This record gives sequence, structure tokens and C-alpha cells, in this order.
Amino acid sequence: MNVLLRPSGRAPDQLRPVSFQRHYTRHAEGSVLVSFGDTRVLCTASIEDRIPPWLRGKGEGWVTAEYGMLPRATGTRTAREATRGGQGGRTMEIQRLIGRSLRACVNRQALGERVITLDCDVIQADGGTRTAAITGAYVALVDAVHVLMRREHLKRNPIVGAVAAVSVGIYKGTPVLDLDYAEDVDCDTDMNVVMNDGGGFIEVQGTAEGHAFRRDELDALLGLAEKGVAELVAAQRAALEA
Amino acid sequence: MNVLLRPSGRAPDQLRPVSFQRHYTRHAEGSVLVSFGDTRVLCTASIEDRIPPWLRGKGEGWVTAEYGMLPRATGTRTAREATRGGQGGRTMEIQRLIGRSLRACVNRQALGERVITLDCDVIQADGGTRTAAITGAYVALVDAVHVLMRREHLKRNPIVGAVAAVSVGIYKGTPVLDLDYAEDVDCDTDMNVVMNDGGGFIEVQGTAEGHAFRRDELDALLGLAEKGVAELVAAQRAALEA
Amino acid sequence: MNVLLRPSGRAPDQLRPVSFQRHYTRHAEGSVLVSFGDTRVLCTASIEDRIPPWLRGKGEGWVTAEYGMLPRATGTRTAREATRGGQGGRTMEIQRLIGRSLRACVNRQALGERVITLDCDVIQADGGTRTAAITGAYVALVDAVHVLMRREHLKRNPIVGAVAAVSVGIYKGTPVLDLDYAEDVDCDTDMNVVMNDGGGFIEVQGTAEGHAFRRDELDALLGLAEKGVAELVAAQRAALEA
Amino acid sequence: MNVLLRPSGRAPDQLRPVSFQRHYTRHAEGSVLVSFGDTRVLCTASIEDRIPPWLRGKGEGWVTAEYGMLPRATGTRTAREATRGGQGGRTMEIQRLIGRSLRACVNRQALGERVITLDCDVIQADGGTRTAAITGAYVALVDAVHVLMRREHLKRNPIVGAVAAVSVGIYKGTPVLDLDYAEDVDCDTDMNVVMNDGGGFIEVQGTAEGHAFRRDELDALLGLAEKGVAELVAAQRAALEA
Amino acid sequence: MNVLLRPSGRAPDQLRPVSFQRHYTRHAEGSVLVSFGDTRVLCTASIEDRIPPWLRGKGEGWVTAEYGMLPRATGTRTAREATRGGQGGRTMEIQRLIGRSLRACVNRQALGERVITLDCDVIQADGGTRTAAITGAYVALVDAVHVLMRREHLKRNPIVGAVAAVSVGIYKGTPVLDLDYAEDVDCDTDMNVVMNDGGGFIEVQGTAEGHAFRRDELDALLGLAEKGVAELVAAQRAALEA
Amino acid sequence: MNVLLRPSGRAPDQLRPVSFQRHYTRHAEGSVLVSFGDTRVLCTASIEDRIPPWLRGKGEGWVTAEYGMLPRATGTRTAREATRGGQGGRTMEIQRLIGRSLRACVNRQALGERVITLDCDVIQADGGTRTAAITGAYVALVDAVHVLMRREHLKRNPIVGAVAAVSVGIYKGTPVLDLDYAEDVDCDTDMNVVMNDGGGFIEVQGTAEGHAFRRDELDALLGLAEKGVAELVAAQRAALEA
Repeated sequence: MNVLLRPSGRAPDQLRPVSFQRHYTRHAEGSVLVSFGDTRVLCTASIEDRIPPWLRGKGEGWVTAEYGMLPRATGTRTAREATRGGQGGRTMEIQRLIGRSLRACVNRQALGERVITLDCDVIQADGGTRTAAITGAYVALVDAVHVLMRREHLKRNPIVGAVAAVSVGIYKGTPVLDLDYAEDVDCDTDMNVVMNDGGGFIEVQGTAEGHAFRRDELDALLGLAEKGVAELVAAQRAALEA
Repeated sequence: MNVLLRPSGRAPDQLRPVSFQRHYTRHAEGSVLVSFGDTRVLCTASIEDRIPPWLRGKGEGWVTAEYGMLPRATGTRTAREATRGGQGGRTMEIQRLIGRSLRACVNRQALGERVITLDCDVIQADGGTRTAAITGAYVALVDAVHVLMRREHLKRNPIVGAVAAVSVGIYKGTPVLDLDYAEDVDCDTDMNVVMNDGGGFIEVQGTAEGHAFRRDELDALLGLAEKGVAELVAAQRAALEA
Repeated sequence: MNVLLRPSGRAPDQLRPVSFQRHYTRHAEGSVLVSFGDTRVLCTASIEDRIPPWLRGKGEGWVTAEYGMLPRATGTRTAREATRGGQGGRTMEIQRLIGRSLRACVNRQALGERVITLDCDVIQADGGTRTAAITGAYVALVDAVHVLMRREHLKRNPIVGAVAAVSVGIYKGTPVLDLDYAEDVDCDTDMNVVMNDGGGFIEVQGTAEGHAFRRDELDALLGLAEKGVAELVAAQRAALEA
Repeated sequence: MNVLLRPSGRAPDQLRPVSFQRHYTRHAEGSVLVSFGDTRVLCTASIEDRIPPWLRGKGEGWVTAEYGMLPRATGTRTAREATRGGQGGRTMEIQRLIGRSLRACVNRQALGERVITLDCDVIQADGGTRTAAITGAYVALVDAVHVLMRREHLKRNPIVGAVAAVSVGIYKGTPVLDLDYAEDVDCDTDMNVVMNDGGGFIEVQGTAEGHAFRRDELDALLGLAEKGVAELVAAQRAALEA
Repeated sequence: MNVLLRPSGRAPDQLRPVSFQRHYTRHAEGSVLVSFGDTRVLCTASIEDRIPPWLRGKGEGWVTAEYGMLPRATGTRTAREATRGGQGGRTMEIQRLIGRSLRACVNRQALGERVITLDCDVIQADGGTRTAAITGAYVALVDAVHVLMRREHLKRNPIVGAVAAVSVGIYKGTPVLDLDYAEDVDCDTDMNVVMNDGGGFIEVQGTAEGHAFRRDELDALLGLAEKGVAELVAAQRAALEA
Repeated sequence: MNVLLRPSGRAPDQLRPVSFQRHYTRHAEGSVLVSFGDTRVLCTASIEDRIPPWLRGKGEGWVTAEYGMLPRATGTRTAREATRGGQGGRTMEIQRLIGRSLRACVNRQALGERVITLDCDVIQADGGTRTAAITGAYVALVDAVHVLMRREHLKRNPIVGAVAAVSVGIYKGTPVLDLDYAEDVDCDTDMNVVMNDGGGFIEVQGTAEGHAFRRDELDALLGLAEKGVAELVAAQRAALEA
């Protein structure tokens, strides 16, 4: 019965097929094409031996993120931000979220005075690009840190645990996990949840699109997110061990 | 004992003194100076008989928000965004949040083909400017709608319920309500919660600044927010009846 | 008879009620809400221990100004300059005028290597915002310098005399003092005059909006300005002694 | 004795040699290279059959101006405004002044629904570029209007009188006419005066660079300006009759 | 012997392995990942039923191109153009070249009043990104036109022949075909040649990086380009028939 | 017969009258008004004792160029780039070409750690502005270097040979030299060729506007360019010896 509910035929608590294609391009220290179903995001991690002005002399590193969307990642062409004179509000919101989320699993003292930039560029969009970006960027970040460790630039591993993200929402009255585009445009409530591998919450961003959500709905959504992130963390681990 | 916990001496579940100064300026259809303690935000509601391009011919109105901060609202001077070539990421994030929150209490069909712009300008900042802005903008919005109704431009009241917002966070291990600046810079977790007068959640935005927060902490924070918003809604009602 | 001339009922040589609300906000070293009738401008003076590149190594300080207008300070909403990609020509013209005017009463050697920025933000506009801004910014500047002197950062007072400004114009054929908005839109000639407390002229900016003005009209306008500025300087002094 | 005063050896009330080279370029309807000594400005007048949005349906025309400076018009190279992302405050201030000044001699009803744009580009700068620009732009404007009249696009001449401008200032204590760069950098007070051929004042913009100027100094400067503009108007007339 | 000349071991007149991956993404009407060795460019063709202002009422269509590079397509990270406030000179030069080149094979009358935008985004760079982009964009363009024809929006095929491009240069004194990055940074002369399938030249852009090139060197380079483009056109045809 | 072919009556291989007016303005170290018929470009060379960041510590200098067009250099007014928020693609393409071309005749080691900026501003346009700019900029560059040598800032002359440029194209089926505007808008193929005085090619940029050009047409155009540049180099030499 639930099979009939979702356009994709998924169960309410079922993720889309998730895959991580590591070493997707050759220049970046970490380079991962992550897929959540038809959503595909290229996440690269770039190491630079510089430090932002506000961290000078503190002996700490920094992790930051930028987000972009190729013009035809979407159903109709989206104008390039470079031709519109700058990044828009949505882009900035998303890349700030990605950066904060990944910094939550990095010991910046251990990273030392360098910057890792996570570029998340959407090649194809089908809903959930920011959660896919966070989940894929984690794998790219780990790969980049491994490069630093192989080169013996680090004394200890600055990565603390794992970080993954998933969207949840109320679609036609039912709480569902990992919304695709068809569900996203038609749902009442949309929440992005970023968690670590210990079950701790890093970010919770929920928005009522239609009616305001009740406390019990919020509880159900958080439960779905906990299940989804646990599965994503397992998938990250499998990809990194491959 | 808790009295000693917070720099301000407030109890963990205590709001700062809240006030609404209606008709603060004379040109805007709604104009409210809202204070949450030392945080003061001027919220104006402006009615314009135009409609954004994407709503043409739909018979609906729109509510949008802009947010700004006077250069010396803060402890050290902040450069004016107009001289930096545009609004930054934080500003866009906040004004998008204010706009979404207020649209949640407006029946856009009933509003008709007009735009109400809520300008929230921070005169003095002491933490919680975005939640004060949402809470004050609601009062300005109601005043502006009353102007429309007095002019008989509306058949029915497009305002559906009330909207208010408050921040909650974990400060030195204890969940507290309505963080001021001294608490904000020093807290582990910060969450902004927007709710309606029926206890429904409109936005939940929580960020772990230090350690990730556990599910039971999240539950406690949501409880505090429910209490705080209920008090804010009562204060809005009292101000509107004054 | 003259009572009938001006929309406000003022005599031709009569200022609007002028007030200065010092310490209007708490973070700025100087913070003054100045009112010229319904025109209200928040003037803050911020001290920064930096020096512009072109003054390095000269042992001098700098005084600069920025001007802004809240979107709904005006009868119809004005788009925020931060969303239009930068400050417009009128804004730049005004803030350059304010900066030049205030520098005329500052001994930059005595100020030492620091910058004082005067932010003049119009909360409510009813004509004469730039002259109100100059007159109020002077009071904020003096307050900020007192802070420096109390902190013993200055050997001697860098303030030399006082500066105030007023507009004059020819309204329906009669020279009048301190135009409000109703007069401003309807006047033939508009002149802003900045003077010091010794009766010296710092800036004279006159524009014929309708017919060119004769030399005798110019003389009458300058006379009115001399009277108005003398009264404004007295009001500044009273406010600073309060 | 006065001969020794000014670096150029001019008498205090003596203009620099002034010339107007009409038809300097071939595409523009009016094209005049004006020289005030070594200051050379190319003024072109371009006619366009369009009308700004705010004048639609009013049956009036518009006259506007733009000002620019070639990068090496000055002693050291000035960065091109097009590479700095836009026009600066000084440029906007000047072009707004030029536009206002020239509109003072145009009957916009008689001009009909068209725009004349006066481009004033400084080829070589030696002080007084804005007054040279106004004085030269008037000649270009008259030439452009003659083109319209020859083509029988106008029923009556929209030009009302003549407009010219000159700078005056107090140099080493003496009021002088038409400051060149050597005088400009070293003078106490600088005033730009725009007048018409009937002796009426259109703009008066005086700035005390050093000490504030007394009323009697102001009177002397205005007298010099009256003399200078009268000579410039005669030179314009001679050029137009050539 | 020549085998030793080139870092890649290629013969002087040998292309890198070339491939076209059609339907690489699912939203665009044409979507091709073109590879010239390690250079990989995603070329999408987007159809829009609009027409640029200057073509209104002419019954013609338009083909335009945009070019971008993902930040980590290169050996060291390149800042995103969207964060630098706009497209740089090199990007504009390249996308204008791509647009002109592709318009050379389109009958714009037959295309009708629509725009096809070719977005060429470099996923991985190893020299020759602009020639790979042109060659791949042609395949994407043909696919997009087939979509239009299948939907019966076109009466006749607007594609006239084929267009491909290749770089040639003088590397260590020898003319070579299709420079990779290692050759590009070290070559004396670099020429990009765009041709059609009839052997006609559409664009020739040659730059002497080191010494100026002689007429006989120019002749040799043009000969290599003719050979290379013929092979690329054959590869395009094979890909389109697959 | 050919005399009738070209609108100007020129023979196919005939340049327009070319002239160089040296010392056209007085501030720049080199200042040349170059005319190719009615195309007039002011080329100034400015010496600055600074070095771009990427050349620090290399002991080399740099030569760069900027290009602009006065708004009414053209038949209809072109909006000023400074008011459009920045330089457009065409401008950047042209100034990059001018810079590369002139660097080809400069020994940057011999120039020492300084920058020469070549500003090429079109006063009047009639086709071929970029080739006139390159040809005139060379003369300005030589004059500026002479200033350096007279001031004994250079040990040896950094100028190596001469550089000039000309356009060629196929006009009504016939290859012609040095296209003017009337020919340019109506020609099938347009090529700009930059060469040195030894007959070496520095840049070749050919674009088929109508039909693609055949190899034999390309050969004929290159031959015309060789003839034209030889004449331009002779004219440069004559001007520099005057």
C-alpha cells in the first residue's frame, strides 16, 4: 500500500540507491561523485597551505565549502550565477550549511594551518542536493586527509567520526525519508537533518511549506532521519573501505 | 542557583523584557520598534500595489522581508552592505527566514494582488535579532492589514493566526530560553524556532556550535521554545489591543 | 499673514523644533537621534584605531561619514541600496558633504592616528535630512571625542569650534528657513549652508530648481542661513551641556 | 604685483585662454572640444528618440549628462572606472551637476519626447574640468538642437538663453578667477558657479578647504564669477557664430 | 624518434583518444561528455522558446554558448567566477568563440524563433578545453535539434554540415597537433582552428607565445589542423550514429 | 575597376591614410593620436614603478593594455562601460590582444621592475579600432621608453623590433586590406593580423562571418596583411624619426 504512495514506489522509510564514485577526477586531493538516485553531485576536496586572516597565529586549520549547480542540472535551464553578478541567497545558505556540517567532524588543531575547500557542484538535480553534497563531501574530505597523512604532513588524523545528511518530509500526510524532486515540490514539510555517526544532531532545518507541523510529526521525522543517516554512514564506510 | 547561571540573572526558561512600540515612524502602513531586552529592531510593513512576475494573473498576493543592520548596532562597527557591493550570505539567510515565517500566517488569496514588504532593521543588537524581527514584523503586518481593511481594500482578513519566534540553546550544559549576546557567543547549541499561536512549528533551525546535541537535549529545547513562543504570542496580542 | 504662507504655519525665518537625543544606542562612542521636526536621523560616531592607507606615517587622523536611509523612512518605500548593488549618486554626494563638513571642525593632528566614522541613518524623512545629519553628527562627534579624552587617549581636544547646517530656499517667492518636505518639492531654489560657530562658511550648495536666482535673493538666503545656524549651534551647545 | 601672485602669471580676475573646437568628431549631433588653458574636455551631444520611464506620456524631453576622465588625463594614471566596477562618488556628483545646469536652459516641452545626452570626457586635466565641461556642453547642445531644427523635428527652439560655469577661489589670501591645477591643490576655498546669460545663478557650490570663508570673501568670489561667466558667455556666442 | 618528442609519446600529427558520451545527464535536450584525453567537458544544449530582443520579429533563432570551469578541474584550485563577481576576460573570450563557431553550422531561419544555449563546463582540464568544448557542443546541438524534430517543431533540419575544432602549436620547434597541458605551457606558438566538414575555416586564432612564427610554420600548422579536424568530424559522425 | 569596388574608392591592397600625432596630451610618458582614415584612437603609455604580484622578485617588468571607447565614438551612442558595471567581453578580448601584441616586442628583463600601461581610447570609430590601437600603442610605448632612457633608468633599450597590425577581409568576394566600417559590416570574413618588422606573425585572428573561408582565400589574406603591416611599420618609423 505504501508502495503506491511515493512516486518512486519506495517505502516511506527507504533511501534512494546511494553510491560514491571516488577518484572521479584526477587533480583534487579528494574527488567523489555521489549519487542519491538521480541526484548527482561532484564533491572535491582541495588542500591549500594558507589560512584565513582571522585564524592567523592560532595554529588551527579551516574547512569551508562552496556549492554550485551546472546550468542544466535542472529541468529548465538556470542562469549561471557568474553571469548574474554573484551567488544568490539560496547558494550561500547551502554552502554555509555544508561548511558548518563538515567542520563538526574535524579537529582543527590537528589539521594544522591549512584550508580544505569542499566544492560541491550539482551535475544533475532530483531533490536533496544539499544532503547529498554533505554526505559526499565527507568522503572527499576523508580522501584528502589521507593524502595529507600519506605525505606525512599530519601527526594525527583530524577527522573525528563521520557526518552524513538526509532530508525528511511529510508527503501527502505521511512522514517519508529522502525526498526526490517529485515529492519535494508537493510536500507540506521539508526538513534537512545533519548528524554524526554517534547519533548526535549537528543541524536540524525544518520548514513548514503548507501547514505548520505538530510536535508528534516532528518526532516522527527525526526518527526517520536517524534511521536514514545510520544507513548513509554505513554506505560511506563501505565506500571508503573499497 | 539558576539565577547565578545566566549573565543576566534570568531563570533558564525566562524571556527578556519584551515590548512593542507601534506607530514608531509615520510613513509606513505598519511600523513597530520591537525590543527583546537590549535588542531593538525597527519593523515596518509597506503595502505596494504590484505583484512579482511569477504571480501574475494568479489573483494572489505576496509577503516578503528584508533585513539590515545599522553599522553601529553592534559592539564594533560593521561595514554597510551597500558599500560592500551587496547583501551577504547571513543577511540573505535571515531575510528569507523572516519572509517564509510571515507568509505562514497569511492567506495570499485573501490578500489580493499586492505585496507587503517587511523591513527589519536592527537599531541595536544584543543577540536574537532574527527572532525579534519575526515577532515584531508580525505586529507591523497586522497593523498594515488593518490599514487595508479600513480603506476597504480587502473583503476578508488575510491574517490567519499569529506567528512568533524565539531562540533556545544549551548554555554551559543547561537548556535556556531567549539567548542574549553574552550567552550566544558562549553556547554549544543554538536553535531558532518559529511557531504559530496553535502550537504548530513553522521553522526549526538548530546548529551545534560545539558538540552535537542529543535527542533528549533537542526535546528539552523544543519544550522551552513552546513556552517562550506562547508568552510572545500573548505579548503581541496585548500590544495589538493597546 | 506669513502664517498662511508656509504649510506648517511657521514664520519665514523660523526653524522647526530641533532636538538631540544623546546616548540613543549603547554601543557607539557617540549616538544621537537628531530631530528637525519630523525628520529624524540617527547619527553614530565610531572610533577605530586604524588609518586610511594615504595617511600612513603622517601622524594624523581622519573623519569620514556614511549616509543611509531606511527603506520606509519615506512616503513610498525606497529600495535598499544593498540590494541595488551599491550606493547611488545622491547618497555618495551627501556622505561626502557630511564628511567634509565635520572635518572642518577637527584638528587632525590632535586626533592622532585613528578614524572616526559618522554614520547618519535616516529613520524618518521630512526634508532636510542632510542638514539634520550634519548638525546631529557634530554632537555625536563631540561625545565620541569625550570618550577618547576620558580614556586619556588624547593630549588635547581635537574639536575646533562647532559645525551646523541648515537649508534655505525660495518658496512661493519668499525666502524661507529650514524647508520641510512639503516646501522642498514645491520650491524654486534650494540651498544647503554649512557654517561654523564663528559665522564662517564651510559649504554653500545652492541649486535653482525653477528660475535662476538673482544676487539679491542669494544675499537674503545667506542671511537666513546665518540666523538659522546660530540658533542650531546654540541648541547643540545646550544639548551637550545637558 | 599681482602678476607674481598666480603660478601662471595671470591677473586675479583673468580667465585662461578659452577655445571651442566645434565638430571635433563626426558622429555626434554636437561635438565640441573645449579648452580652458591646458584643461581639455570633449563634449558631445547625442539625440535619442526615447524617453525615460518617469516622463512617459508627459510630452516632455530630457537632458542628461555623463562625465568621464581618460586614465592618463591626469599627472599620474587614474584607474578606469569601468575596471573598478562602476562610477565613483566624485564622477556622479559632477555629472549630476552638469545635467542640472544644462537643463536650466532648456524648455523641455519644446524639446519634445527625446533625450539629449551630454558626454563630457576629459582628455587632459589641469583644474576646472567640471566648469569647462558645462561651458563646452552648452555649445554642443546648441549644435545638436540646430541639427534637430534643420531636420524640422522641432517647432520652436527649446534653448532658453545660455549657461556657462567657472571656478573661483581664495588662493594665498586673494580671490582669483578660474583656478588651474597648481592653484587648486593649494587654495583655501574653492567655488564652482554656474550662471545664465542674464546674470542669474543656477548653481553655487563652495567648499572651504582650509579655513571657513567670511561673508565678505564670499561676496568677492561671487563678483569674480559674475565677471568670468559674462566673458565665457561671450566666447560661446562667438564660437557659435563662427 | 618523434615518439620521444611529446611527453605523451604521441606522434606530432596524432590526436589524443577522443570520445563522446551522449545523454550524460537527463534533463538537457542534448548532453554530451566529450573527452580529449584527460580533458573532459560536459556540453549541454538547452532549448528555450524565447528570442533575444534584437531578433524580435525577424523569424530567426539564435545559438549562444557559455563556458565554465569547475574550481578543481585544474591542478590547483581556481576561484569560482560566481564568487569573484562575474565572468573574467578569458571566459568571455572562450564562450564568444564557441557561440560564433556553432552558429556557423546553423541555418537560423530554419531554427525558428528559439534559443539554443550550449553550456560547456570543464570537469577536468588537461589543455585544449575550448576546442574540446566546440567539438562536443556540436554533438549536443545535433541531439537537441533531433529532439525538436521528433516533437515536430521544425519543418527542416537547421544544421548545415558539421563543426569541430583542434589546437595546433609549435612545441620544441616541431609543429604538433592537439596540445595537452604539458605541451601547452611549454610551447612557442598556440593556434586554435575551427573548421567545418567541408574543409572551410570558421575561426583561426594563433598567438606567438615565444618567438613570432614564420609563414612556413603557419602553413604547417594549418595543415595539421586540417588533418585533425577531419578525424574529429569522423568521430562526431560515428558517435551520432551509435 | 577595383576602384569602384570599395565604398572609399581604395584599391583592394590600399591602406587608409595613416598618421601619428605624438605628444598629443602632456601628462603621459607616451601619448599618440593614431588615425587610420576616420578611425582615431588616443594611445597613452604610462610608466609605474610597481610590479604585478605574480612577477615579484623575478626582476622583470610588465606591459599591459586597456581599451575603451568614448560613448559617441560610434554612429549611435554606446552606453559607458562604467555605468554598466564593468567591461564587456568584447573590450576584454581587445585589450588582452593589445597587451599580448605589445609584449611581443619588449624584453621584460631589460625593462626592469616596472609596469607600462597602454591605454587605447577610441575617440572616433570607423572600423579597425583594435589594429589602429596596436599600431599607435607601439609608437607611444617607444616614446615612453625613451623617457626612461633619458632619465637613465634603463641600461639597455627593452624594445625589440616593431609591432603593427592591420585588418584584412573578403569584401564582396575580393580580399581587401584595412577594412573601414562600411566594409566591415558587409564582409564575409574578417581577420586581424599582428606582425613584427621581421615579417613574423604575432597574432592571427580570423573569423568567417558569412561562409567559411577556403585555404586559398586565407593565403591571399595573409599576403595582403604582410604588405599592409610592412607599410605601417615604415609609417611608424617615419613618425618616430620626425
